[in-house]
Amino acid sequence: MTRQQLIEQIRLKKSFLCVGLDTDVKKIPIHLLDLHDPIFEFNKAIVDATAPYCVAYKPNLAFYEAFGIHGMTAFKKTIQYIKENHPHHFIIADAKRGDIGNTSKLYARTFFEEYDVDALTVAPYMGEDSVMPFLEYEGKWVILLALTSNKGSHDFQTLPTDGKPEDETSERLFERVIKTSQQWGTTENMMYVVGATQGEMFKDIRRLAPDHFLLVPGVGAQGGSLQEVCRYGMTKDCGLLVNSSRAIIYADNTELFAEVAGNKAREMQQEMATLLDLN
Amino acid sequence: MTRQQLIEQIRLKKSFLCVGLDTDVKKIPIHLLDLHDPIFEFNKAIVDATAPYCVAYKPNLAFYEAFGIHGMTAFKKTIQYIKENHPHHFIIADAKRGDIGNTSKLYARTFFEEYDVDALTVAPYMGEDSVMPFLEYEGKWVILLALTSNKGSHDFQTLPTDGKPEDETSERLFERVIKTSQQWGTTENMMYVVGATQGEMFKDIRRLAPDHFLLVPGVGAQGGSLQEVCRYGMTKDCGLLVNSSRAIIYADNTELFAEVAGNKAREMQQEMATLLDLN
Repeated sequence: MTRQQLIEQIRLKKSFLCVGLDTDVKKIPIHLLDLHDPIFEFNKAIVDATAPYCVAYKPNLAFYEAFGIHGMTAFKKTIQYIKENHPHHFIIADAKRGDIGNTSKLYARTFFEEYDVDALTVAPYMGEDSVMPFLEYEGKWVILLALTSNKGSHDFQTLPTDGKPEDETSERLFERVIKTSQQWGTTENMMYVVGATQGEMFKDIRRLAPDHFLLVPGVGAQGGSLQEVCRYGMTKDCGLLVNSSRAIIYADNTELFAEVAGNKAREMQQEMATLLDLN
Repeated sequence: MTRQQLIEQIRLKKSFLCVGLDTDVKKIPIHLLDLHDPIFEFNKAIVDATAPYCVAYKPNLAFYEAFGIHGMTAFKKTIQYIKENHPHHFIIADAKRGDIGNTSKLYARTFFEEYDVDALTVAPYMGEDSVMPFLEYEGKWVILLALTSNKGSHDFQTLPTDGKPEDETSERLFERVIKTSQQWGTTENMMYVVGATQGEMFKDIRRLAPDHFLLVPGVGAQGGSLQEVCRYGMTKDCGLLVNSSRAIIYADNTELFAEVAGNKAREMQQEMATLLDLN
């Protein structure tokens, strides 16, 4: 999917919601466990109920790998189901991969050819040759970790890296990652992960990456504010994909789970529509 | 496997060789392709031929994931085969995982319970809560990326992070990772990845981590020198696991492939035995 197509979907739906498919067999409604493939059945119902209100889906690989072969089969079926039934949704594999060149090349083949997702989250620690193989695929995206939503994001990501005493002008590691990586990819094939919990830091990020899309986890369970993210992070093209996982997919665990998830997604979409209007 | 058991194996075999099982269907001998599970059959033969000369195996997940469900089945069978037939070998899943706490917890469950490997490579970018879930497993190891073997290692890993002008006393990112992470784990459950291509940098690393084991990729195809790694990196307990993948497993692609791989592993073991004697 191209940047332009993504922006069109956001305008059309008045939504920049990404639904995180962090599907855990231990948390899904008990009546699904009798079915042949509970993980896939859960995803299918969630996707059908939320599709009108979101523009993207983000399955997190950890949840599928945890169930071995069955989990990976469910992952593959989920991707295929979304592509066939909701072909205008952007699909992000949240896998945080990154390795030496020949290994990243294989990961790229796996996710962009075998699974055929639109985007993959990638860790920047190993530098240019660990990221480039993912950027060689036309129409596919790298979503590079910049400033994540968790507490540990302050262990290394916010360290000053410009050899000057730390003050408000310091270039921190996440800023260096954003600057350096703009030599590798463009606004057409690269986004950054920035946690919703980071508040005003979005201002610093927008100074460096005024036009890049940002994938924003951390609204909801992790405590980030949608209003704040939009105030500091939204651009004229929206420029945001805000993810919500648990607050939507586990909003209910009765037979009505999909309907309730759809309602939750609609509530978020409605809030997003207002915020989009403000811009 | 405990640190003491690993050291005993190194002493017993006079080897600190780790064989990297980067098994690619496109590179294995053609006669194996007729078998039911060529990846597993290749690994089985390589493992049996090299086991006397190495102390560890390191399958790289990218290679198995690239072949989808079949690949992951072969990965699982390979781990089981090593555990049953060569129970004193240390098994490292080279997966470079790392995510927010609840997600890392799932990865830990997958690799340490489902696959039951001894160690997992982990990326440090997301900080403490992305690493801790892996350290909660008794007898299991985190191998944290510190200074990798690839060219891109100089993009971020060697940046100064102490807010002082860059000079020979600067604390670079990889050094900060090593210092900070010693508050999370010990020499009994944490190692660091340091590329063989980094030469004298091993001195800087030994100043910060005098007793930790280092997993050292990059000898062979990537150009690192075993002598140099030992000169600057070896400790009284050896403290090194030196990995070789392509130079051993793809040394030959005829029906003699396993025998030739065994010979290559023995050559490396013999060189290692001399280097161990020197210390």
